[in-house]
Amino acid sequence: MLTLYHYWSSVCSQKVRLCLIEKGVAWENRHVDIFKFEHLEPDYLRLNPNGVVPTIEHDGRVMIESTVINEYINESFPGAALAPAEPHARGLMRLWVKKSDEVAHPGVAVASYRVRHKPRLAGVPKDALLAQARRQPTAAKRAQAVSRIEHGVPEAEEEMAYTRLDELLDQMEAALVDGPWLLGGTYSLADIALAPYINRVEVLDRPEMLRPDLRPRLADWWARMQARPAYAEAFSFANPDPTDPIAR
Amino acid sequence: MLTLYHYWSSVCSQKVRLCLIEKGVAWENRHVDIFKFEHLEPDYLRLNPNGVVPTIEHDGRVMIESTVINEYINESFPGAALAPAEPHARGLMRLWVKKSDEVAHPGVAVASYRVRHKPRLAGVPKDALLAQARRQPTAAKRAQAVSRIEHGVPEAEEEMAYTRLDELLDQMEAALVDGPWLLGGTYSLADIALAPYINRVEVLDRPEMLRPDLRPRLADWWARMQARPAYAEAFSFANPDPTDPIAR
Repeated sequence: MLTLYHYWSSVCSQKVRLCLIEKGVAWENRHVDIFKFEHLEPDYLRLNPNGVVPTIEHDGRVMIESTVINEYINESFPGAALAPAEPHARGLMRLWVKKSDEVAHPGVAVASYRVRHKPRLAGVPKDALLAQARRQPTAAKRAQAVSRIEHGVPEAEEEMAYTRLDELLDQMEAALVDGPWLLGGTYSLADIALAPYINRVEVLDRPEMLRPDLRPRLADWWARMQARPAYAEAFSFANPDPTDPIAR
Repeated sequence: MLTLYHYWSSVCSQKVRLCLIEKGVAWENRHVDIFKFEHLEPDYLRLNPNGVVPTIEHDGRVMIESTVINEYINESFPGAALAPAEPHARGLMRLWVKKSDEVAHPGVAVASYRVRHKPRLAGVPKDALLAQARRQPTAAKRAQAVSRIEHGVPEAEEEMAYTRLDELLDQMEAALVDGPWLLGGTYSLADIALAPYINRVEVLDRPEMLRPDLRPRLADWWARMQARPAYAEAFSFANPDPTDPIAR
């Protein structure tokens, strides 16, 4: 039995849903509304001390952090192998996964704040936001949350986030010369780790970054990703809250 | 044949040396002096596009990023198993390794700047430092390098780095209740990933963070780590440059 705690449009939740569906693993659904701060409730923090989505509970044991969860899912269930058997290729896969964590994730998080996160919090009084910020589980996260409430994302920081994403897309374009997937012939957790960030770039302020004439191989890869039945299912998880101003 | 490109006192180099020695893997030595900017030379950047140490080359194939290298070494060579066979335990190991990358590494890097990195660069003219900063391989790294040259590490940033390290040490203390190792009975890449950062805290400005009366289980773990023959060998790699003002 696997329970998935996730939020419909969170990039890390999309990543784990895509992996579960590719492996053919069914899950019991627990939607955690991060814009209602459900991820900072004591019961959820006991499962996930980092206070982020997603979390899985599998046969009574918890696992957190989407990229660690995905290796766990791949290693724990039969079905399609989502990592190469050969150690060097598996290392190359992990370098992409690491890049998704260290470049794609912070890049997209920063670039999402003004256009996606802030509008969702527009109705919440500042005092209530600050009270939620103080519930973040680490000093660094509390400081970051307070800074966002007080100052938003400074223009230079947003610009740097797009620059980092641009560099990453260039690296993907270069790697895809051996396509169709990031590791060449093998569809893997590398493709799964990057897909949610490309999906997000499409709805941020600079979707032109994905123009086929700029990066044709990336555009082909993205079309191939979206054509997978698992993609359609993972990325169409419906938002249970009809009042959310963000549609996709 | 395995070639190791590394720097004597770099935490990530120590991490990979410790793993290689635990596995009984011999290497051919290439010392890369990062304070002479050898890691930013075009030949090295071709091996390691991130411009960091260490890098390994094994039977003609390159692998980068210390934590990815260590999983690769563990999976590629016979000798002691440094990861649990059971997927859930392996996931827990990867959560510690991830924390070493995302909390310990930036914490220690920030806290090392004033007391270790800056003194080593004291003799280099500012123009030369700025020229080196422009050779960093990404926009974010260039901006960060320039900011360090112009402003050093702001006091609040150094304070936050120590706070993050304190939180991490608390988490290690809590996990070691099932000791002797971070995963309980199994010595693993989790212990190897954290060891270099604890070694570094000893020579930073707040070694009292490691006082046995504050965190007795952590102190015991640290004594056990240091008692391993592989530790002694990995961490005593001699500095080839006798003019380096940093002794350990």
